[in-house]
Amino acid sequence: MDAYRHVKVKRDGDTVRITMNRPERRNALSGEHLGELRAAFADAGESDATGIVLAGAGPVFCAGHDFADVAARDVVGVRDLLRSCTELMGTIQSVPQVVIARVHGLATAAGCQLVASCDLAIAAESAAFALPGGKGGWFCHTPAVPVARSIGRKRLMQLALTGEPVDARTAAGWGLVNEAVPDADLDTAVEELLRLATRGSRRGKAVGKQVLYSQLDRPEADAYAIAVEVMASMSASPGAREGMTAFLEKRAPSWPD
Amino acid sequence: MDAYRHVKVKRDGDTVRITMNRPERRNALSGEHLGELRAAFADAGESDATGIVLAGAGPVFCAGHDFADVAARDVVGVRDLLRSCTELMGTIQSVPQVVIARVHGLATAAGCQLVASCDLAIAAESAAFALPGGKGGWFCHTPAVPVARSIGRKRLMQLALTGEPVDARTAAGWGLVNEAVPDADLDTAVEELLRLATRGSRRGKAVGKQVLYSQLDRPEADAYAIAVEVMASMSASPGAREGMTAFLEKRAPSWPD
Amino acid sequence: MDAYRHVKVKRDGDTVRITMNRPERRNALSGEHLGELRAAFADAGESDATGIVLAGAGPVFCAGHDFADVAARDVVGVRDLLRSCTELMGTIQSVPQVVIARVHGLATAAGCQLVASCDLAIAAESAAFALPGGKGGWFCHTPAVPVARSIGRKRLMQLALTGEPVDARTAAGWGLVNEAVPDADLDTAVEELLRLATRGSRRGKAVGKQVLYSQLDRPEADAYAIAVEVMASMSASPGAREGMTAFLEKRAPSWPD
Repeated sequence: MDAYRHVKVKRDGDTVRITMNRPERRNALSGEHLGELRAAFADAGESDATGIVLAGAGPVFCAGHDFADVAARDVVGVRDLLRSCTELMGTIQSVPQVVIARVHGLATAAGCQLVASCDLAIAAESAAFALPGGKGGWFCHTPAVPVARSIGRKRLMQLALTGEPVDARTAAGWGLVNEAVPDADLDTAVEELLRLATRGSRRGKAVGKQVLYSQLDRPEADAYAIAVEVMASMSASPGAREGMTAFLEKRAPSWPD
Repeated sequence: MDAYRHVKVKRDGDTVRITMNRPERRNALSGEHLGELRAAFADAGESDATGIVLAGAGPVFCAGHDFADVAARDVVGVRDLLRSCTELMGTIQSVPQVVIARVHGLATAAGCQLVASCDLAIAAESAAFALPGGKGGWFCHTPAVPVARSIGRKRLMQLALTGEPVDARTAAGWGLVNEAVPDADLDTAVEELLRLATRGSRRGKAVGKQVLYSQLDRPEADAYAIAVEVMASMSASPGAREGMTAFLEKRAPSWPD
Repeated sequence: MDAYRHVKVKRDGDTVRITMNRPERRNALSGEHLGELRAAFADAGESDATGIVLAGAGPVFCAGHDFADVAARDVVGVRDLLRSCTELMGTIQSVPQVVIARVHGLATAAGCQLVASCDLAIAAESAAFALPGGKGGWFCHTPAVPVARSIGRKRLMQLALTGEPVDARTAAGWGLVNEAVPDADLDTAVEELLRLATRGSRRGKAVGKQVLYSQLDRPEADAYAIAVEVMASMSASPGAREGMTAFLEKRAPSWPD
């Protein structure tokens, strides 16, 4: 893996740990930082790892875009930045690995968008979540896209229009994160969820993740049309065959692939 | 009504009770079982009953597809099975009756899909819900379709990717079932919800159910276009007229139809 | 502002307070009342106010359509009424101001639809919410449209099929309202949410609200396409520039526009 300026990447068994490492800028997503994160996810996506953990160094998970970078750009430059950010979110959802956000502190604007875009998320109780454009300046239009697909409409409006943070317990109650845990238990909870979410056939899970995102946005009948075809095809995969055979033979499965 | 091998059907007043009755196979949905269930729902749909209760015999509500059946099929055969299963879910949503799942035990894979596909569901506190393909074998692509339309995205990902069960209280908090009740109160709660959901004009409620499913998947403006036309037409129906007249005359309605 | 027969409109600083004022008819939405409400929202929308509070006079927030009016109409007349009602809901969502429902009592049928259609809603603990067409007469087809976009599918089915009310705490847990507060705290909670949701650049927030409703109904990629273009354009707006500059200069922003 490449060495990055703002991102730490560490291979740890079957897991790739990607850490935003600009603590002096609250892990703000400058154009360079976004590009590095996207490259890190793309690299991890091509590896044989089964899971990716996204974390942040320093007291804050991620404060969103870097206003020093944004303020120096014209509209075309800002559009490039937002497209790069959107591509990062797409990469997170398109890599075959399960991606878990480890949210230890504040996640705001595009930082909150990152949490909403990861497949799974565990938050420390002291973490908080906000779309601070609602305080009055640059409205959080793009962060609101995956947040809107994670929580209900009234809650989205509250986050987006007020800019006020909600705490981790509230975020878990709304479904923005899977669980809020005592700060001291954050790593244990992330590792346990990672273990459960990455077990089994790597190929089966990678296809599973892709089909989930494909079907989510579609009418129910269209979603079924996709799911039936993929599920029928995958019934002949070594992973599916081993899962069924092991079940029928009442033994533990030995996952291929 | 026909006699089935795997399904018990009982007419009970205005209710049809359909019970999956393969307890020795944890009510697994073999091709034959699926076909019988679909026929039982289609028959009930053509009856003058107002409600249908779907239950399971034995300790488990339904364990999903029958791996002995799946393992014996090639991809084309599995596709037939999944199409048959999808048609069952569609039949449940298209019959004019209100359909309530009575979930007394574990509902996994296509069993969890059944719960998500019924109009309403009451779970005993000891019930649990899972998409066990997430444990690593045959991913639960089709069960995830209606589950994704019942609960939030992060919770869907957790169920689908980990395969771990959630208990009935959690499922109720997520909106996968309407209520989790003490085991001893399950039948009382089902009967009370059934009574409330089936009262009134049979035709009005049948049209109501259909329009709900029609509008759910559509953009809000399209949903309104359908709902306005149907609601205007239905304002002249005997049920609507009686409801309005009884209200205006401050008397109890006497439902026609 | 015009004087209306059924609606009170009061300008109060940056807020327009619109109050349904037919307490003797439980604020029922006759054709005339609907027309006045829509005119009041359209007028407020053209004003320089930043927020709108929708309230109801008397013990009930709003009982929905006025059956005396509906019963006197043929199907074409009812369709006109429902179209007028749908246009009111669209106006609420299209005005540039943040709209908050102040729900002090029962909100049923089109009254519940109003709550679901406002951007934000605070309910007194003694308030309740219902789609009473589920009791058996005229099914609540159109109220179910925005309610379905605020709460989960099983909860929608319960409300729509049973007609039974849910209390304010339950409605808050489901996401139909933002918060349920003790009755005595209702006005304080509404004013505080209003203050937070209306601060900052008026233009930025108006565009923000519009893009939220535009992106909500679309597939995620389409939503991003809209959000990226608007957010890039808005990065050059005075409000966004002031927000970023104030942040970088570590001073309080002074909002233009």
